[in-house]
Amino acid sequence: MTKNIYFDIDKKISTVAVQQQLNCLFMPESEMILNPETQAQPAEKHQSTKTAILVIGGAEDKVHGKEILHTFFTRSGATDAVIGIIPSASREPTLIGDRYLHIFEEMGAKYIKVLDVRDRDQGEDPYYLQYVEECTGLFMTGGDQLRLCGLLADTTLMDKIVQRVKKREITLAGTSAGAAVMGYHMIAGGSSGECPNRALVDMAMGLGIIPEVLVDQHFHNRNRLGRLLSAIVAHPQLLGVGIDEDTCALFEQNNTIQVMGRGTVTILDARTISYTNQAQAQGNEPFSIHNLRLHVLSHGDRYDLKQHQPIPQAET
Amino acid sequence: MTKNIYFDIDKKISTVAVQQQLNCLFMPESEMILNPETQAQPAEKHQSTKTAILVIGGAEDKVHGKEILHTFFTRSGATDAVIGIIPSASREPTLIGDRYLHIFEEMGAKYIKVLDVRDRDQGEDPYYLQYVEECTGLFMTGGDQLRLCGLLADTTLMDKIVQRVKKREITLAGTSAGAAVMGYHMIAGGSSGECPNRALVDMAMGLGIIPEVLVDQHFHNRNRLGRLLSAIVAHPQLLGVGIDEDTCALFEQNNTIQVMGRGTVTILDARTISYTNQAQAQGNEPFSIHNLRLHVLSHGDRYDLKQHQPIPQAET
Repeated sequence: MTKNIYFDIDKKISTVAVQQQLNCLFMPESEMILNPETQAQPAEKHQSTKTAILVIGGAEDKVHGKEILHTFFTRSGATDAVIGIIPSASREPTLIGDRYLHIFEEMGAKYIKVLDVRDRDQGEDPYYLQYVEECTGLFMTGGDQLRLCGLLADTTLMDKIVQRVKKREITLAGTSAGAAVMGYHMIAGGSSGECPNRALVDMAMGLGIIPEVLVDQHFHNRNRLGRLLSAIVAHPQLLGVGIDEDTCALFEQNNTIQVMGRGTVTILDARTISYTNQAQAQGNEPFSIHNLRLHVLSHGDRYDLKQHQPIPQAET
Repeated sequence: MTKNIYFDIDKKISTVAVQQQLNCLFMPESEMILNPETQAQPAEKHQSTKTAILVIGGAEDKVHGKEILHTFFTRSGATDAVIGIIPSASREPTLIGDRYLHIFEEMGAKYIKVLDVRDRDQGEDPYYLQYVEECTGLFMTGGDQLRLCGLLADTTLMDKIVQRVKKREITLAGTSAGAAVMGYHMIAGGSSGECPNRALVDMAMGLGIIPEVLVDQHFHNRNRLGRLLSAIVAHPQLLGVGIDEDTCALFEQNNTIQVMGRGTVTILDARTISYTNQAQAQGNEPFSIHNLRLHVLSHGDRYDLKQHQPIPQAET
């Protein structure tokens, strides 16, 4: 792995940016500070863009309408967006980073950078830190959520990203593994094809971007009711959010989730559970879970995170 | 297909019965009326047995503890049971009929017959009619539920079985396809790996043995939440019952379901649904389903069919 790899996949479309990249090409990475005069500008232009957090169930359309990716692009400031792509969940970060870069480039984004963090030291890199300071949109790709958290959790880079997301200065999207890391608790892995049980799911710490949710992705596609139930019954204070492929749970600033895409978002509301044997059941002994509330939300439906109630598309 | 095929897999363990079978071997099938003196006896002996309907999610243990099959055997009258096996769902009725016959034989059943109905005419066969009149337990195997219903629905044989089950004179079990047919409405087939939608499930008429339920089997094992949701949202007055493999929803006479086995029984209670787009969504457009109640019941849990409430094992 050479430093040049990072530059192969970095790309800025504006002439200034390209020039700057060329200038940087042989500079030590620590010196690659963006010129604030050229880079800060787009971010300032788009403070009016309504930021959001897009939690995507994986396998989102990258070829036809690209509805979800286009929403990310728009919510990041459209052609004036300053986009960062974090491909660190993937073992093929060059490939996947490049793919998203070309998609957003085709949409008309002029400022895109792949923040190809491959070791934790890069999470302190001043160049990357400066870039996320100026970003209007950040996209975390799929791969392995443990890898993503292992590389980025508690780095200055991630802290800065979370801070800016929480201040609603930046639109953040994560797909598949990039979606899994959104909560404080995270499903790190598990199995399917079984009833809910302790052994069915492996938990870990997430990035805590939306602490109150517990996300699972590829939900109906990969038979993940069992593992999300297994996880949520141990954390009934959290909201279980199972997102299908090519589907997005878009967390708005007004404490609602907006659903978009081809599939559904399944909400498991464990607050109503009247009984569970979760504390007693060991290994792969089945969990009992009585009186759980379940919502299947499709395109246009919303969910009120304060009232804990779905809002039909008809009423939106 | 010759008549001899039926006799290959018919089997009675008592000497009297074996003798009778030999006597019958070359008799026309219509003349094969059981001797009421030898055959009616066990049924009378066991009127005290608490009958039940065992709805089994498929792939029940046939090798080790055989807990579910043993419960069927016991509830049918144990060693004095008169058992009928209906292998008609299967395209290999001889094989599968024989397999269950040997299992119940090993448990100590002395009166077992495979009612190998392969065309609808056999549903009027006086010998079979007489046998089900004297049965204390009937077992429907797996296979294809449409095949089973196609061969047996509205035959005199099935009418007689349903009548006796409803009078609680007989214990009835069905596994996999044999479980699917229990309701008035039946899931005939469908797909998995998708969110709930109209195209995901094919419905047909079941045998109406427990009219108020809509059964799906191999539930968590084969990712069938989507199709059971798709079915139940069109029939919200029914109770969705998703049964895992090697798991049994045992319908007791007192209007409760008792859960036994290795997996879980998932109950979808659609009465609480506050909104669905079911009427509008076409083809594979995702269904919205808001405020559904879900219960995961494990071994020992019960469900009160009148109160629509689960009862934890601890309280039983």
